[in-house]
Amino acid sequence: MNESVKVKLKSIVGGNNFFDSYEDRLCYSYDATPLYQQLPEAVVFPESEEQISAVIKLANEARFAVVPRGAGTGLSGGSIPVENSVVVVMTRWNKILEIDTQNLTAWVQPGVVTGDLQKEVEKYGLFYPPDPGSLNVCTLGGNVANNAGGLRGLKYGVTKNYVLGIEMILPNGQLLKFGGKNMKDVAGYNLKDFIIGSEGTLGIITKILLRIIPMPTHSVTLLAYFDKLKDSAQSVSDIIAAHITPCMMEFLDNTTINCVEDYTKIGLPINAEAMLLIEVDGRGSSVFEDSELIQNLLKKNRAANIKIASDAAESLILKTARRSAFSALARRKPTTILEDATVPRSELPVMIEKVTEAAKKFDVIIGNFGHAGDGNLHPTCLTDERDEAEIEKAHKAFDFIFNEAIKLGGTITGEHGTGLAKKKFLEKVAGIPAIDMMMKIKLVIDENNILNPGKIFSISPRCEGTLPISRNQIKEFHK
Amino acid sequence: MNESVKVKLKSIVGGNNFFDSYEDRLCYSYDATPLYQQLPEAVVFPESEEQISAVIKLANEARFAVVPRGAGTGLSGGSIPVENSVVVVMTRWNKILEIDTQNLTAWVQPGVVTGDLQKEVEKYGLFYPPDPGSLNVCTLGGNVANNAGGLRGLKYGVTKNYVLGIEMILPNGQLLKFGGKNMKDVAGYNLKDFIIGSEGTLGIITKILLRIIPMPTHSVTLLAYFDKLKDSAQSVSDIIAAHITPCMMEFLDNTTINCVEDYTKIGLPINAEAMLLIEVDGRGSSVFEDSELIQNLLKKNRAANIKIASDAAESLILKTARRSAFSALARRKPTTILEDATVPRSELPVMIEKVTEAAKKFDVIIGNFGHAGDGNLHPTCLTDERDEAEIEKAHKAFDFIFNEAIKLGGTITGEHGTGLAKKKFLEKVAGIPAIDMMMKIKLVIDENNILNPGKIFSISPRCEGTLPISRNQIKEFHK
Repeated sequence: MNESVKVKLKSIVGGNNFFDSYEDRLCYSYDATPLYQQLPEAVVFPESEEQISAVIKLANEARFAVVPRGAGTGLSGGSIPVENSVVVVMTRWNKILEIDTQNLTAWVQPGVVTGDLQKEVEKYGLFYPPDPGSLNVCTLGGNVANNAGGLRGLKYGVTKNYVLGIEMILPNGQLLKFGGKNMKDVAGYNLKDFIIGSEGTLGIITKILLRIIPMPTHSVTLLAYFDKLKDSAQSVSDIIAAHITPCMMEFLDNTTINCVEDYTKIGLPINAEAMLLIEVDGRGSSVFEDSELIQNLLKKNRAANIKIASDAAESLILKTARRSAFSALARRKPTTILEDATVPRSELPVMIEKVTEAAKKFDVIIGNFGHAGDGNLHPTCLTDERDEAEIEKAHKAFDFIFNEAIKLGGTITGEHGTGLAKKKFLEKVAGIPAIDMMMKIKLVIDENNILNPGKIFSISPRCEGTLPISRNQIKEFHK
Repeated sequence: MNESVKVKLKSIVGGNNFFDSYEDRLCYSYDATPLYQQLPEAVVFPESEEQISAVIKLANEARFAVVPRGAGTGLSGGSIPVENSVVVVMTRWNKILEIDTQNLTAWVQPGVVTGDLQKEVEKYGLFYPPDPGSLNVCTLGGNVANNAGGLRGLKYGVTKNYVLGIEMILPNGQLLKFGGKNMKDVAGYNLKDFIIGSEGTLGIITKILLRIIPMPTHSVTLLAYFDKLKDSAQSVSDIIAAHITPCMMEFLDNTTINCVEDYTKIGLPINAEAMLLIEVDGRGSSVFEDSELIQNLLKKNRAANIKIASDAAESLILKTARRSAFSALARRKPTTILEDATVPRSELPVMIEKVTEAAKKFDVIIGNFGHAGDGNLHPTCLTDERDEAEIEKAHKAFDFIFNEAIKLGGTITGEHGTGLAKKKFLEKVAGIPAIDMMMKIKLVIDENNILNPGKIFSISPRCEGTLPISRNQIKEFHK
């Protein structure tokens, strides 16, 4: 990057908000996605909408890419810099601006950590349900950019269901304000929902208006172990068919159970083929009625043991068993590739078997867990990126898994996003007319393709290069 | 329209599916929106995706506009022909293609009547909640095109919350397929939600995949009358603040109560300033607990009388009192202008007063009713379009109402759409950057602006002319 451009950047954001040393650039060269890394030219922390707008206008003039970033917890490469890019970090935009207990809304800045908002609204007896695994770290701006899900998605839906309004700097530098506290609004095109899940390619979010709901008053948490994996899958189907909508219905396979027990030491049965974590919640006594029904169905499907949390503390322990799955799996080997293949609920048992088949066929370790209630599995490969042969096998295993998911009417990503990691599958899932429409829309909004280019799809590969640089190559830079 | 173009149209859809007599064109020259009318050049009933595609390709070549149409129940002019247009009627596409009781989904053609789908899924103990006032007539394609709401929106959301997939013929004639039975899918841009509510300007829908949910097992319906309108508004606020989410919470003012009683003769109190219809539903006994809480709050706010339906039949009668509001009001005078101003819930009492003020100030009769629980009012002017002075006053009254709604942070349309009737307010609600983005996207998808041009916004007014032709002028044609 031209020194004169750097000088201009510094004058926009201030010298103390501009970083271009090797070490600083290294810190922002990766996110939680394994295997991808790229040094940006610089990293900036803008303090105002005007500064963001000016950075973006400069990007259009000087033709560098802008990569927005929250906490960098993404799992498909959405925050990874591209060649000739400047990372715009939004984590300091971390204020909860307003909680309106009459309209049940919250205005937040994009850098607010999801878990922090949840704790804050709980003080008012209110509830912000979307609970991605990284909720204690990730930011709401990133959640909106990815339409983040979580365990509670089964009953409560995903981020998109809670966004009422967005303010965003467009790729032309204009500030776009959209939505408001109205519970219903159909004026004009639904730009709001189009922006949600656009993975930072259509603008930089500066403010979000969220819907919050009343906190459920009662809940029951259950853990059930199964000797046979298919009995757990059948339980899930039966519970849905019985018209019960649990708050969450989560699945862990034997590999995952063992990693979690190794980490948490809470006495999980390490020989069980599968474990289900189920929570029902709501107002009043129907919750207990539903809990009884669920227990009957679990027993009917030969659950070896059913544990019911006796209080909130025990409920938290049981849920932690599930919430720590990723971290627990990540302890086993140096590289953890967590994926996101989702299928229609009816295909869940088949898909679980396909994941097991992939691990055997390609000789890799895959722990499988996820949101059984909505068909969203997280097959997780435990491997070592320094071993090229291993990585080759892991890639083949995931290619197989994604192709099988697509064959079953599924998708390549239920909640993590396409980013870089799943671009090559997008055509199979979405089809050419859809991708064509996406690209046209992208280019009409971002004429110079400067905002997070190369994420989701490639418009002009030459200027979007993100080379999966191995950490060995980074060491080469260092010498 | 050139005779040769008509010949081509006939050869595409077949002579028996092509209509261009004066009488036939007249039948499709209007919809449920008062005051707007325009003769199309022709009306066609295509039988396949290929035929629709061919009509659209011809439209691009011969430069005529295509206006998609369902049952024509729209209230903002979305189905009204424009100059030099062909209406494409989709009502014969009325098959329910599949109900999947495992995945809880339904594939439907766009011409299926909303109420028919609801009756069908009820046979399986399932539920399709969105309930626009016209549900016994309107079609699901129109519902999707407008993101239709209804009484149950307060708890169950709107059409958008139930659409999992769409198949649509694009303005370039291509078939776009999007979405599927996955409960979660973030692959690529959220085209699906962008299409929902696009009012027929981005394509012609040919197939819809809907989410259906378990039918609630218990419900309680209550009717409460108030001597003072503001007590009813306060009741609504209190119920929301108590963290209860009724299935519906509907409001009727005195004018509306009188019209409804005149029509239904079910013994409504014609001196009450306001009436609330409230329904709570769910699984099991919490429903009755919530009903008790609600009754306490109604009494606290001086409800003069509270009636609780003793059985399903009585519940239906009470709900019919509300559902027949529009029809009942329409009996009073020849022209009924039903509008759709929505405000944040907290502003409901103020907005109700503004509507009353508008009626007085401009000396028109306005009955007010609507979805109190989500701030979506339906101020309805009872007038006579043959009286130009009256219509002038009605327009001024609605200008006032919309401006007041916008001042309160509201929107011009909660569920009816922008169409023709509310175009002039869009800029105030959405702002220029947003409209600019909408127009750019529209033009990149529909390069020749042939699909329902002039609805929502005007790109090139000269070719989008819909003159509000009065019925007197139509008579002129006839001579």
